[in-house]
Amino acid sequence: MKSDINRLLHERDLDAFIVFGGEEFNSARYYLGNGANITHGTIVKARDGETLLVCGGIEFAEAKKSGLPVKTSAELGYNDRLAETEYKAAEATALFFGDLLREIGVQSGRVGLYGAWQVNKTIALYQLLAAQSQYAFVAEGSPTVIETAMLTKDADEIARMKSVAQRSNAVMQAAWDFIAGLRRDGDFLLDAMGRRATIGVVKDLVRRELMARGLEDTGLIFAQGADGGSPHSRGEADMPLQVGQAIVFDLFPRELGGGYHHDMTRTWCIGFAPPEVQTAYDTVMEAFDIAVEAYGLNKPTHIMQEIVQDHFEARGHATSRSDPKTLCGYMHSLGHGVGIDIHERPSISHLARKDIFQVGNVFSIEPGLYYPELGFGVRVEDLFVIDGEGQLVSLTTFRKDLVIPLRDEA
Amino acid sequence: MKSDINRLLHERDLDAFIVFGGEEFNSARYYLGNGANITHGTIVKARDGETLLVCGGIEFAEAKKSGLPVKTSAELGYNDRLAETEYKAAEATALFFGDLLREIGVQSGRVGLYGAWQVNKTIALYQLLAAQSQYAFVAEGSPTVIETAMLTKDADEIARMKSVAQRSNAVMQAAWDFIAGLRRDGDFLLDAMGRRATIGVVKDLVRRELMARGLEDTGLIFAQGADGGSPHSRGEADMPLQVGQAIVFDLFPRELGGGYHHDMTRTWCIGFAPPEVQTAYDTVMEAFDIAVEAYGLNKPTHIMQEIVQDHFEARGHATSRSDPKTLCGYMHSLGHGVGIDIHERPSISHLARKDIFQVGNVFSIEPGLYYPELGFGVRVEDLFVIDGEGQLVSLTTFRKDLVIPLRDEA
Repeated sequence: MKSDINRLLHERDLDAFIVFGGEEFNSARYYLGNGANITHGTIVKARDGETLLVCGGIEFAEAKKSGLPVKTSAELGYNDRLAETEYKAAEATALFFGDLLREIGVQSGRVGLYGAWQVNKTIALYQLLAAQSQYAFVAEGSPTVIETAMLTKDADEIARMKSVAQRSNAVMQAAWDFIAGLRRDGDFLLDAMGRRATIGVVKDLVRRELMARGLEDTGLIFAQGADGGSPHSRGEADMPLQVGQAIVFDLFPRELGGGYHHDMTRTWCIGFAPPEVQTAYDTVMEAFDIAVEAYGLNKPTHIMQEIVQDHFEARGHATSRSDPKTLCGYMHSLGHGVGIDIHERPSISHLARKDIFQVGNVFSIEPGLYYPELGFGVRVEDLFVIDGEGQLVSLTTFRKDLVIPLRDEA
Repeated sequence: MKSDINRLLHERDLDAFIVFGGEEFNSARYYLGNGANITHGTIVKARDGETLLVCGGIEFAEAKKSGLPVKTSAELGYNDRLAETEYKAAEATALFFGDLLREIGVQSGRVGLYGAWQVNKTIALYQLLAAQSQYAFVAEGSPTVIETAMLTKDADEIARMKSVAQRSNAVMQAAWDFIAGLRRDGDFLLDAMGRRATIGVVKDLVRRELMARGLEDTGLIFAQGADGGSPHSRGEADMPLQVGQAIVFDLFPRELGGGYHHDMTRTWCIGFAPPEVQTAYDTVMEAFDIAVEAYGLNKPTHIMQEIVQDHFEARGHATSRSDPKTLCGYMHSLGHGVGIDIHERPSISHLARKDIFQVGNVFSIEPGLYYPELGFGVRVEDLFVIDGEGQLVSLTTFRKDLVIPLRDEA
């Protein structure tokens, strides 16, 4: 958690770090800046020193909401550096980063670089920074100091994520209720106005329900039939809902304007489930239960994925372990950490050998089976937290039923 | 525009480029991938060759919607590279980028790197790429080949931006209508249910109205009083609306899920405008008109900013030219290009010496005056396109009135 950062800097022999970037969403800046709503701004911290936020004058008022000490870049001489370098932004920024390090009392040493930015700008800046011989600028591999801090959530973060979870569950309930209230018309479904219900109508409803609860969609999946057989197909807005088709509904909203996410998936069949979908669903639910049972505090995460792969392979399904090129069967990670980023550490993958389950982890468990050529996919996902006692607790309370019965037919 | 890319590669002596990154919104990938809804994926192009999109298997179906040739990373051997490097992602990716270049027939030469990613990952990858002696990997300064292409929009892009503009204007009208229908209660305002209207209520309404039109908010500013005096203060949701306060309303939504933006600002006073706000507003509107008159095809953009700075300085206001550290007066750029990114080239700043006005530019003109200690700010912004005849045309048709008269008092 955030309070670990100073210890991590010691462990990794880093004297300071700089978090920088442009307008791309920058989870390290959001995290260290306590959610301040700024689109630029640089954060510097010396080991054992305080965290300083530096921004342009026009963002000063928002930056102060971070609760951090804030200075403007003009106040610290960025404009002078610009003039000195004949308005070459990369050159000026490289010199300015040296100024910032001296401002926080770091005259030399190893400096971690974090944040998110355009790759050409990052590289051009790095080339100039690397020429400043008093500092060694370090590009840590994953998980960095910041990612390591982020992968164990503190009590405030968990409280926020529980609230996002509760709201997300309510939105899924609203979508279920809407669909259950549709009227069957052959293979299709009509709303109360007699219009054919489409995926777009459901997605619009979900986005409105999220917004009404202070959440925002970040690209939900509502993929029916063969589309659901491709794990990251989003679903076509103009496709009409149909009875007896598997629908993969993966909802991963976040707090409005950036913040903590929830991540949950259900597979639904409207009215009835065809036998092959029911069988795949049962196999996925077995995998889900096996995964939860395989959990153990301090256990390596990859074991959970391998046990699930064993399960699927024993039932004749290809996995990305048995065939890395397969486009059907079970071909993704079992889960991933979730927080300010939708994909954080830990990774629950057979390829992630070093992650272990720790108190404060918040991560998904999401086995699935995908058969686009048979016209369906199935995935079921809950978000879990490891509580203070080391227990695995699901934040996703919404029912896991496969079939949505139509109220008209009840 | 996109069709210029090949010519630009010739002009800049680049043999190929690679666009890469993680889950950060990646405008280069969006642009070259024709809006395909993928969160990973690498794009490679040889000069005079076709554009290839490479993605993980789980994104294959969405990637194909780009219309580009698509291959999976597994198919091109990424998993073999992972195994070969003992699952070190950066090492494997560096080797894989070499594989991709050879796949498109580029055995050596200068390769531009574009996209958006975590800075530590970019730098670690770049250090490994730089060791591949057959290629020189190039971090272009701004504007890169991609940014240069993006700064002149083609007919399809302009049609989309006109549609986003029209919808944004309608949303601003909806906000105006809502406010005009409020009932005065002393200095405050009540809605039809007798509840005190707040900034949060207006922001929620705006977000709903955007969504109903297929747009999404990306952080709108609705800042009243002293908050509006700080150019990028967002406005406090729980602050009640008040009569006679300047409200800076900066709306910059984009197409749902990523896409083209609009950008427009109005300053409103509910009921009446205090004299000092009216005076500042008049001065800003003069600046706006002066800027539009200063436009000329192929003229350097910085001249427009300088003429506006002359105007403000002559009336006794500090500018970021007369005092780079000022936190009041006029302290930002006059405008910026808008497209898939909210801030693109050209930049209309006294510090941007090389940009000129060209056919197909879409950019904002947004003079403002900020006096947080006097309790107000004023900004007025339209988005303009330079049409095929070189004429400057505003896409922001919404009225520029300062005062919203209350219908109850009319």
